[in-house]
Amino acid sequence: PAGPPAAERLRYILGEDDEPPNPTLFTEMDTLQHDGEEMEWKESARWIKFEEKVEEGGERWSKPHVSTLSLHSLFELRTCLQTGTVLLDLDGYSLPQIIDDVVEKQIEDGLLKPELREKISYVLLRKHRHQTKKPIHRSLVDIGKSVSTNTMEMSALFLVGFTNKQKKEDRCCGCRGRFSEMQSNSVKLLKNKFIKKIPKDAEASNVLVGEVEFLEKPFVAFVRLLQATMLGGVTEVPVPTRFLFILLGPAGKAKSYNEIGRAIATLMVDDLFSDVAYKARDREDLIAGIDEFLDEVIVLPPGEWDPNIRIEPPKKVPSAEKSGSLPQEIGFLTERSGADEWHGREELAWTGRFCGGLYLDIKRKLPWFPSDFYEGFHIQSISAILFIYLGCITNAITFGGLLGDATDNYQGVMESFLGTAMAGSMFCLFAGQPLIILSSTGPILIFEKLLFDFSKGNGIDYMEFRLWIGLHSAVQCLILVATDASFIIKYITRFTEEGFSTLISFIFIYDAIKKMIGAFKYYPINSDFKPDYVTMYKCECVAPDPGTFASGERGKRGIRIDSALDWTQLSKKECLKYGGSLVGKSCKFVPDLALMSFILFFGTYSMTLTLKKFKFSRYFPTKLRKLISDFSIFMSILMFVGLDVLFGLNTPKLQVPTDFKPTRVDRGWFVFPFGKNPWWVYLASALPALLVTILIFMDQQITAVIVNRKEHKLRKAAGYHLDLFWVGILMAVCSFMGLPWYVAATVISIAHIDSLKMETETSAPGEQPQFLGVREQRVTGIIVFVLTGISVFLAPILKYIPMPVLYGVFLYMGVASLNGIQFWDRCKLFLMPAKHQPDYVFLRHVPLRRIHLFTLVQIVCLAVLWILKSTVAAIIFPVMILALILVRRLLDFVFSQHDLAWIDNIIPEKEKKKEDDKKKKKK
Amino acid sequence: PAGPPAAERLRYILGEDDEPPNPTLFTEMDTLQHDGEEMEWKESARWIKFEEKVEEGGERWSKPHVSTLSLHSLFELRTCLQTGTVLLDLDGYSLPQIIDDVVEKQIEDGLLKPELREKISYVLLRKHRHQTKKPIHRSLVDIGKSVSTNTMEMSALFLVGFTNKQKKEDRCCGCRGRFSEMQSNSVKLLKNKFIKKIPKDAEASNVLVGEVEFLEKPFVAFVRLLQATMLGGVTEVPVPTRFLFILLGPAGKAKSYNEIGRAIATLMVDDLFSDVAYKARDREDLIAGIDEFLDEVIVLPPGEWDPNIRIEPPKKVPSAEKSGSLPQEIGFLTERSGADEWHGREELAWTGRFCGGLYLDIKRKLPWFPSDFYEGFHIQSISAILFIYLGCITNAITFGGLLGDATDNYQGVMESFLGTAMAGSMFCLFAGQPLIILSSTGPILIFEKLLFDFSKGNGIDYMEFRLWIGLHSAVQCLILVATDASFIIKYITRFTEEGFSTLISFIFIYDAIKKMIGAFKYYPINSDFKPDYVTMYKCECVAPDPGTFASGERGKRGIRIDSALDWTQLSKKECLKYGGSLVGKSCKFVPDLALMSFILFFGTYSMTLTLKKFKFSRYFPTKLRKLISDFSIFMSILMFVGLDVLFGLNTPKLQVPTDFKPTRVDRGWFVFPFGKNPWWVYLASALPALLVTILIFMDQQITAVIVNRKEHKLRKAAGYHLDLFWVGILMAVCSFMGLPWYVAATVISIAHIDSLKMETETSAPGEQPQFLGVREQRVTGIIVFVLTGISVFLAPILKYIPMPVLYGVFLYMGVASLNGIQFWDRCKLFLMPAKHQPDYVFLRHVPLRRIHLFTLVQIVCLAVLWILKSTVAAIIFPVMILALILVRRLLDFVFSQHDLAWIDNIIPEKEKKKEDDKKKKKK
Repeated sequence: PAGPPAAERLRYILGEDDEPPNPTLFTEMDTLQHDGEEMEWKESARWIKFEEKVEEGGERWSKPHVSTLSLHSLFELRTCLQTGTVLLDLDGYSLPQIIDDVVEKQIEDGLLKPELREKISYVLLRKHRHQTKKPIHRSLVDIGKSVSTNTMEMSALFLVGFTNKQKKEDRCCGCRGRFSEMQSNSVKLLKNKFIKKIPKDAEASNVLVGEVEFLEKPFVAFVRLLQATMLGGVTEVPVPTRFLFILLGPAGKAKSYNEIGRAIATLMVDDLFSDVAYKARDREDLIAGIDEFLDEVIVLPPGEWDPNIRIEPPKKVPSAEKSGSLPQEIGFLTERSGADEWHGREELAWTGRFCGGLYLDIKRKLPWFPSDFYEGFHIQSISAILFIYLGCITNAITFGGLLGDATDNYQGVMESFLGTAMAGSMFCLFAGQPLIILSSTGPILIFEKLLFDFSKGNGIDYMEFRLWIGLHSAVQCLILVATDASFIIKYITRFTEEGFSTLISFIFIYDAIKKMIGAFKYYPINSDFKPDYVTMYKCECVAPDPGTFASGERGKRGIRIDSALDWTQLSKKECLKYGGSLVGKSCKFVPDLALMSFILFFGTYSMTLTLKKFKFSRYFPTKLRKLISDFSIFMSILMFVGLDVLFGLNTPKLQVPTDFKPTRVDRGWFVFPFGKNPWWVYLASALPALLVTILIFMDQQITAVIVNRKEHKLRKAAGYHLDLFWVGILMAVCSFMGLPWYVAATVISIAHIDSLKMETETSAPGEQPQFLGVREQRVTGIIVFVLTGISVFLAPILKYIPMPVLYGVFLYMGVASLNGIQFWDRCKLFLMPAKHQPDYVFLRHVPLRRIHLFTLVQIVCLAVLWILKSTVAAIIFPVMILALILVRRLLDFVFSQHDLAWIDNIIPEKEKKKEDDKKKKKK
Repeated sequence: PAGPPAAERLRYILGEDDEPPNPTLFTEMDTLQHDGEEMEWKESARWIKFEEKVEEGGERWSKPHVSTLSLHSLFELRTCLQTGTVLLDLDGYSLPQIIDDVVEKQIEDGLLKPELREKISYVLLRKHRHQTKKPIHRSLVDIGKSVSTNTMEMSALFLVGFTNKQKKEDRCCGCRGRFSEMQSNSVKLLKNKFIKKIPKDAEASNVLVGEVEFLEKPFVAFVRLLQATMLGGVTEVPVPTRFLFILLGPAGKAKSYNEIGRAIATLMVDDLFSDVAYKARDREDLIAGIDEFLDEVIVLPPGEWDPNIRIEPPKKVPSAEKSGSLPQEIGFLTERSGADEWHGREELAWTGRFCGGLYLDIKRKLPWFPSDFYEGFHIQSISAILFIYLGCITNAITFGGLLGDATDNYQGVMESFLGTAMAGSMFCLFAGQPLIILSSTGPILIFEKLLFDFSKGNGIDYMEFRLWIGLHSAVQCLILVATDASFIIKYITRFTEEGFSTLISFIFIYDAIKKMIGAFKYYPINSDFKPDYVTMYKCECVAPDPGTFASGERGKRGIRIDSALDWTQLSKKECLKYGGSLVGKSCKFVPDLALMSFILFFGTYSMTLTLKKFKFSRYFPTKLRKLISDFSIFMSILMFVGLDVLFGLNTPKLQVPTDFKPTRVDRGWFVFPFGKNPWWVYLASALPALLVTILIFMDQQITAVIVNRKEHKLRKAAGYHLDLFWVGILMAVCSFMGLPWYVAATVISIAHIDSLKMETETSAPGEQPQFLGVREQRVTGIIVFVLTGISVFLAPILKYIPMPVLYGVFLYMGVASLNGIQFWDRCKLFLMPAKHQPDYVFLRHVPLRRIHLFTLVQIVCLAVLWILKSTVAAIIFPVMILALILVRRLLDFVFSQHDLAWIDNIIPEKEKKKEDDKKKKKK
């Protein structure tokens, strides 16, 4: 029935786009209930965007759901509007007056017998009973009481008509009259939290349907008031009514009337139709609106769907401008817009001027600088700080320990703490992307190890040599900054990016598990132990063989009670120290610790995972769940530290240095640049510095790219050049102070971002919360590093944290950062039969075998990188990432650009250009 | 547009219900693809019940989904059928001939210019290319090859027209001609697994849509063939075509044509419309069919739904007879039919005759007896046997051990094994409900304990006393059987039933956890242990103080090397036996075992849970997943036994007696009834016997009620009286042999049923598998108990199973049997905010506070029962369950019958009677 005339009509009335948008409509449907002689209007459903139904018996609101209508009822509604009374822009100020006008009009038009006037008015003025949601605790108190007392409450309010004759702008002021007193009463009585869900400028449309004995044919009226008016107790919440739809009909067709009521209610909350309803000039416009609605409607075949299923609101609803684009196109755009935009962003454009990029970065970031601080003060920041802080000190201790081993304590845990605190806080304070967390990384550790061995072997002073490498590298970084060299980062596609971050995640997971297995080696379990033979297990310290003491009888178990040394009272270490030897079955075993470590490790990991998922459970209010989810890591750490304390076992604990002094006594806090090495070393160190520079550049910028991904919806722009500038500066400072070098840590940075994600508070019931962006600020980062710095003083508290708990956190970080990596999703596809695969957009557009091939190439690249990382070649690791870019370039010859566009999100500008070229050629 | 005329028309043609149903229609839609000059028909979607689309780029089938149509396309389709050519019962034998006829008809009717005849035919006879699903492993091999070779394959088949002029019945025989050779070729070529999804008698409807340059107005034809005919390569699978819909139109509106094609395809698989299509006499009938379809259609408002979302097929689709009943009613019936029917079943009717119930039970079960055996031979039975067997021996060992403790080994593990094997296998062989698993239960254990203490204290011979109690009780049971007393079971509602089974589940969970905590007490952990001070820990055996040996120097650590007794070489037990004392820090500690036990316990539990859930994951083919899920318990046991073996720790293992002899040497396998006790004991034992009878009756019959629940869809009827008869007989036998008494074990019986559940193999893609029922047979039960019996010989294998692993299985059994208990679901509601609660039917009809009140009453009852169970009052436990029935009766005064009907599923007969009464009164 929807033809061009309807569309034309609508185009005419909806013509001007620049008008202010209409208020949101809240629709309430009340049905007439007969209780013997008594009648009342009972709320049966309501709509803001989705339908909420009153569950009759359950006395509760259903979940918001998509209104499924029958086509039949829509056609009946159409007929109703064609034949019934339509009053547009009625000047109504109270319900009785409005009803009078409507009835009068019906009689005028000969639709209603005059003798029914009284009866109709009587019915329409019956009191309205609303479904108010009671909190459960109250309901439990109420048990045994008879059903709700709102009936009385509402009747007190009934017929409090109030007219707002002022213009819309004045309404709020005009409210403060006789009415506001009464209304405020009613608000108090209702205590209806629901009002929060309705936008402030909303207007109501009331739908009243019911059957009455005395009518022979339906009484239908559609009323639009000139001004939205409070009609007292008609609406559940104090929202002024703008529209009124009344359908009273002969008895026996209640269900049909109900469906018609639902149809008009659904129409009223439809964006297009509500526009039409506000602007309609006459009945025909409304009907054209229905026709247009019908034309857009989605139809489900009756045989394939059960109409009783309540359809959950979709995650996304197409915007009001129905573009009619192809499904594929929509999917393409929504999916792609994710990771693309940064490629084209101006941050990575090559300015061609000296320090042009740096200048632009500063110019871009400076206006945000104040907000970077005040926006940091939020409850969510606390959980983020705790989370990242724990990650940072674990990292600092782990790398500190390893560096200490590698460099003979020239750089140890103390240096690691100090360096992390200083470099991290400086970076968070001044860098372009304060969400990035600096840390020591694996490749640098390996470099330091090789450097130390080389220096030692060739008689070169390590600290001075290292200082010069650091300085050269810092200068090289600054040159890269000055020449805008970071622009090449934009040639990094998803392929490289994901390869890199997967590798880092794997390293995290691998390290955590390796450390855990290490515990089993460090605390060997005596698997032959039999409880009954406990008497056979001992470990005794035996004095060295050339006994200095009189040894009359010397058995295998020589026990000496001596004045000089009581060997039996010596501890294991002391015994070995004084040259004794340990004899006995239990010497090389340590009971319980390995298994306890495992329980702590695995427990922390799985508890964190469980608590993180708790956000999606049904239990407890949303806010509490979100809190639990946000603090999941902190809570699991607390829980398992508690468990550890409970058992009181001597598990390995976090050991933070307590004295502020270099780990090695023969070095100070400043490395003097000259004097210890021959002059040519100062120059030659430029060469190893080049390696460090590549390493740092790649590590830093790929992490920055990942952090600045479009998915994260960052508003405050990136600052690649500024970041690198500070990394260079800090490198020089650290070199002078003999501290480790720092660069962006991928996994912790991603964790930082994840813990700062913001979502909308749900507005209309049923609407999904939308991801808004990340709380971009410098506060969390700075506090984390300040805390890291003063951790030296927190040692008494931190020493309760067992290391296995922290390894569990590491494992979680690694696993969590794998999520959301498309490469990982594609790997999983190998294990899924085609028909069970999730509906990824790229699967719709690229043949599975091409996707698998692409994934396989990535897996091979990763395997090669992994092998490299595990050998001495780890130093050329960053160079290999450059090679990754090359491999990706080669793939251009294997895969079509169409396929790559879907799997690898190639730069859209490139595509656009091609398209432009084509168009030009055609012309 | 759908008015009464359409409905009337349809009523006329669809009139006779007794006709054989029409064949299932498989619909394939092909669209015309232009590739330069070349044209071909490419399959773009197909329907059996739900739509599967060809993902253009992905070269794959989409997941089956509900076809969402636009209303617009349905109206356009209606217009097409109104204006296009409709040929019903065309006698077609090959595609060219059919097309000739159609084109001829169009020209005749002046719808097509004669000069276009050739062009149209040319287009319609283009070859058809189908989307065949390749298995992934093949795709991987194919990598690099160019796209599918099916094009060639199909063209070879093209135009193989085949006519089947015989009657439908003869078709299969008639197929064996010239055609079958060619067709079998094609089948081989295709290797299309999809054919399995199509019912054997299915017919195809082909929808061809496309745009061509030379047409000015659309060319539309709807053809129904007189006989379904193989049209060669037109259809993807060798299914004969019955319907053909052709839409060719001018270029530029491909999308619109596509939608029209989808609309007719969806209509063709609609139950009602396909009926109409088969029986339509003319064009008007088809249009009436569309109108009727439109009238039933479900409409989604465009603003609330994104048409690009593919709607997953619903779990249940309303049946073809659209009854138009209220949603509530449907929900009510489907939900309620679950637990109701058994109440009304004849098994529990009171016959009033002597042994009437027993007689009926035997009469009812006898016909099923043979099938009870041959239906047991199925792969699923193996997993069920393994699962239940492990549960049974664990139970036998646990209760055996406890009974041994309680009765000073008059009944021990050996008796427990023998009794379980004998009683269980006899019961499964002859009882009314062979799915029930017999076992010792907690209340009986407590009874035995009290009985033994009483006998000992009063100088009564325990075994003889017990024999007489058993005999009395057996006789009482038989009296209950003879008088049909089991009929009172039908007064047990969900309230009692769920209370009982929840309690049993809790006992399982509680026991498992208690045993686990016991391990920490049994193997205390030395929490002060410091690895460095390992030298300080020892445990030495010190000879008793009044030394019989020369003791020159006696320190605190007196070490003696002596000829008579080397105290240092004694084990803990020996040391204490010879009166020595243990001295040392490590004496009272056992390393590792407690923690290892915990890891095994918790690991087995969570691994089982994870593997059980694996069925719903996306990985691996469905069959493999189902296998993993079915064998989850077995696999986790294997896994953790393996882990245990790997560590080689001395964890407590399952210890099965190896010699076939009574646990206590002074008793034999037969208890003589006379001689040891005074004569009055024989009579007096009738009193305690009464308690045992009540206990057994309640335990047995409530479990039977739970097993026979309607949810389980048992076909072979229950046998309450027969069950009780055998329990009584076995009781007498066990008493004579001095074995424990056996009664139905709730949790294991439910586990038995769960492991034997059958589901439909999915038929049409997208249709959900339906629960069909339980594999009712006697084989699994018998084998389980035979295995239990010969477990005495399996000891060498079974001794590898650590007890904590079995406790893990117990925990799993307890937790798993809580699922699906409505009471438990209602308990969870306390923790959920109203808006997050699942959409349970009872929530829609009963106010939340009433539900909470009901749940609270149940919780209080359970708490009281729990307290009783934990004290000596445990003996009157079965009496308390009778009290539960009373409490439920009292609830009738607190809750309305309406509410109870929803929460407690009260007996529908009662309701029906009331309604009947009302009706009678009205008359």
